[in-house]
Amino acid sequence: MSNFDLTTIAHMDELKTQTPFDTQHVHKELKTCQERELSDNKIVPTLKDAIMLCGLKDGMTISFHHHFRNGDFVINKVMNVIAEMGIKGLVLAPSSLIDIHKPLIEHIKNGVVHRIETSGLRGELAEAISRGLMEVPVVFRSHGGRAAVIETGQLPIDIAFIGAPSCDPLGNANGYSRDNDKGIVCGAMGYAKLDAQYAKKVVILTDNIVPFPNVPFGISESDVDYIVEVDAIGDPSGIMSGATRYTTNPKDLMIAQKVAEVIEATDFFRNGFSLQMGSGGASLATVRFMKEKMLKKKIKASFALGGITGQIVQLHEEGLIKKILDVQSFDLDAARSLKNNRFHQQISASYYASPNSKGSAVNQLDFVVLSALEIDVDFNVNVLTGSDGVIRGAIGGHCDTAAGASVAIITCPLTRGRIPTIVNRVNTIVTPGKTIDIVVTDQGIAVNPIRADLIRMMETAGIDLCTIEDLRDKAERIVGEGTPIAYTDRVVGVVTYRDGSVIDLIYQVKEEQELED
Amino acid sequence: MSNFDLTTIAHMDELKTQTPFDTQHVHKELKTCQERELSDNKIVPTLKDAIMLCGLKDGMTISFHHHFRNGDFVINKVMNVIAEMGIKGLVLAPSSLIDIHKPLIEHIKNGVVHRIETSGLRGELAEAISRGLMEVPVVFRSHGGRAAVIETGQLPIDIAFIGAPSCDPLGNANGYSRDNDKGIVCGAMGYAKLDAQYAKKVVILTDNIVPFPNVPFGISESDVDYIVEVDAIGDPSGIMSGATRYTTNPKDLMIAQKVAEVIEATDFFRNGFSLQMGSGGASLATVRFMKEKMLKKKIKASFALGGITGQIVQLHEEGLIKKILDVQSFDLDAARSLKNNRFHQQISASYYASPNSKGSAVNQLDFVVLSALEIDVDFNVNVLTGSDGVIRGAIGGHCDTAAGASVAIITCPLTRGRIPTIVNRVNTIVTPGKTIDIVVTDQGIAVNPIRADLIRMMETAGIDLCTIEDLRDKAERIVGEGTPIAYTDRVVGVVTYRDGSVIDLIYQVKEEQELED
Repeated sequence: MSNFDLTTIAHMDELKTQTPFDTQHVHKELKTCQERELSDNKIVPTLKDAIMLCGLKDGMTISFHHHFRNGDFVINKVMNVIAEMGIKGLVLAPSSLIDIHKPLIEHIKNGVVHRIETSGLRGELAEAISRGLMEVPVVFRSHGGRAAVIETGQLPIDIAFIGAPSCDPLGNANGYSRDNDKGIVCGAMGYAKLDAQYAKKVVILTDNIVPFPNVPFGISESDVDYIVEVDAIGDPSGIMSGATRYTTNPKDLMIAQKVAEVIEATDFFRNGFSLQMGSGGASLATVRFMKEKMLKKKIKASFALGGITGQIVQLHEEGLIKKILDVQSFDLDAARSLKNNRFHQQISASYYASPNSKGSAVNQLDFVVLSALEIDVDFNVNVLTGSDGVIRGAIGGHCDTAAGASVAIITCPLTRGRIPTIVNRVNTIVTPGKTIDIVVTDQGIAVNPIRADLIRMMETAGIDLCTIEDLRDKAERIVGEGTPIAYTDRVVGVVTYRDGSVIDLIYQVKEEQELED
Repeated sequence: MSNFDLTTIAHMDELKTQTPFDTQHVHKELKTCQERELSDNKIVPTLKDAIMLCGLKDGMTISFHHHFRNGDFVINKVMNVIAEMGIKGLVLAPSSLIDIHKPLIEHIKNGVVHRIETSGLRGELAEAISRGLMEVPVVFRSHGGRAAVIETGQLPIDIAFIGAPSCDPLGNANGYSRDNDKGIVCGAMGYAKLDAQYAKKVVILTDNIVPFPNVPFGISESDVDYIVEVDAIGDPSGIMSGATRYTTNPKDLMIAQKVAEVIEATDFFRNGFSLQMGSGGASLATVRFMKEKMLKKKIKASFALGGITGQIVQLHEEGLIKKILDVQSFDLDAARSLKNNRFHQQISASYYASPNSKGSAVNQLDFVVLSALEIDVDFNVNVLTGSDGVIRGAIGGHCDTAAGASVAIITCPLTRGRIPTIVNRVNTIVTPGKTIDIVVTDQGIAVNPIRADLIRMMETAGIDLCTIEDLRDKAERIVGEGTPIAYTDRVVGVVTYRDGSVIDLIYQVKEEQELED
């Protein structure tokens, strides 16, 4: 009876002949309390059941989140079952991959995984891929860039597998639990939120089924198909450190103090400003120095964004930062605050950083403080490949926040051991220099010449500046010019910018053996 | 550079020739603090600007929400501007229409509005439509049914106009304000949430622009295109009563007490049960009687769903109802609780009741207590047309909750004045009898014969039952058989069930003049 076009009067006469209408199709499921408790849920006995029910086939795309960081058991667990099922040629599209995911090497060798899209790669897996493990290059995307291709359908996800520290029988899931304070905690699940919204099928893995309704939720039951209860979803020590500690490294402290001075010197440091801070030693210490300046100047921040740490939470709880927008909680204090503080809001990867959405919080940032493996004289930043050319990092929200923030600050030591940080040309461009405004090192501060406004503000505040070339020369004087990395001509990684364009290629590194020839 | 296929190695050689990659397209918007505060927003000067920017054209579909109920200024305001702009033939798809929307009569006459899809119609507009105002019949959908056709794309919304009691300059909007306790309040905005997610363009109308980020938000900036600041979005007295009062009507109190007894007699009244209550006098009073029984039996409810009242909030704050899932706040106490209570969660129309989504909270209901204009011997319920055949109601979540709840209870007086409530055949089937389980009147209780389980439970508890035919006969004895309504053969309304099928037709009523002939 739903074949009638109700938008015109054309079908009305035909409809009239149907009266009284048949309600044969109306159905109400009748269950006793006991039946209901047993059957009214999406829980399936095994991971294999869930995978079969989702209809996983060769060549499909599956996604994972990296909120469990180096404590994640989910990817390896799921991939083992998939491999046992004999499924091949999958596209793996996790929000990131870390050291713990080295078992993927075998799955790539066996043809289970054909292609990878990720924000980052680390450890032995990254090493193996840099040395030519994969036939098809890995596509690297920023968190915002990944959100955009998921939203536009350029990266269609067939099944999202989501590890969750709590989940009710219908699929309302979260990154913490209210019933079990001793369980796994990851805090915000911003990357998983987006995957859940867009994936055709969604499977939650959890070690903690809680009563319905598990509200407030990070993942809504509206997006969930199946739930699998497993013994363990992760290793707490790998997922979270306790509270992130302040650095005692004097170089970091010096950089942090300079960053706070630079921030104070700008017009953007005013009541209602906004900030995003990385989780590195210098960034964390910067928060402490900024607090002093905020108190002195009697100003408050309107919000902090991004990966959230206990340092940000502390300022929030002291009333110095009004709201927190949290896509990823970096420590237990951040996760606890998400659970308990009403103005600490969980946001999705799209809300955080998508260049494609109607609103992206990175565009409201006054300051972002970021790190770098290398930065070159054009202010291009590399956070992906090491000085040996091997992949050992992640794009994360680096280029997203740099593009969005009024003032994007890179903090780095001038040199790391015998390796210069400021170079002529970075190995791998991740964040284009046009979007980087200030570089703060232990040996001097350089402002991007396109930011005449910031140069003027620094001069007014009496902050000593040098050029980026000065910094490069200084680094060269200390450690000498680096040896160029020897690469083969085979592409192992394609680095995309947040708008989806290709911004650099990563080539396979030449083996020492080959070098000796 | 985004034309390369990154999923194979085919394009790699071509890609290599691009190195170093051009970053010409990389763009960072540089603005001073002042420029940023002035321009970094979605606020447009007038409603007309917003409508033009959205590209409204003849024949498009526009939507509105009814969270402002009979205090809504938004629909009339928007329709006046659209009419002035000379746009014609629109499809109006609000979540519901109420007395205050009678100016739509002129817009229908003038051809601005061609067709309407809604949950309900009341007042002069409903009267006019019942008497043949519109060329094309109005399509009535339940809240869940509307959510489903929006999700599937069967009802594509071109522009959603959303009135919001608070909104930041980027579009994060909510049904209350933290900065202005004296402003307009509507509480949950569950119907608007869904429209915002699916409409091609979204315009927020607000009288209260608040600082970014307005979190927690009901509507996300990710979904909002334009914001218009207007003098007034509604009349507080029409939007909200204060706290909804307990009835002192003895008939209502008697029915309420019986409903509580019926609920207590079922197996479903156990620790962790769930409930939804209407806002009528008997429903509200039922909550009070249930509380006594919960305390006596030492049980708590896991959640309350739906339109939420202060009575539900009180039990929540006393710890007797653990969580609240709120699609629509019926009074100021409910709105205040949504603002302040962490486990009072705002949900979308889809999460509430869509038969199409992966999760629908109505399916987790143990009890729903509903009202009826009429109910017939097959337990079919009419909540849409009066005893004169004129439209004067709304489907709301009636058929959604009846289908989902383990025990769907109808409360009604046996007669209203000279009008019987229990009849042979309802004028208009809205909720099919198959989904209605128990009818509680002031003159007796009838259980649907298909619910042998409930009949057994009632008998065990010693609750007197009669048949629905007994109730009909009793009503007939009191008020006599009603005069059949005289209709023309012209269809003015098509009633759909939540699955989209047509379940009844509403015909144009015959004018008295015609009757006299």
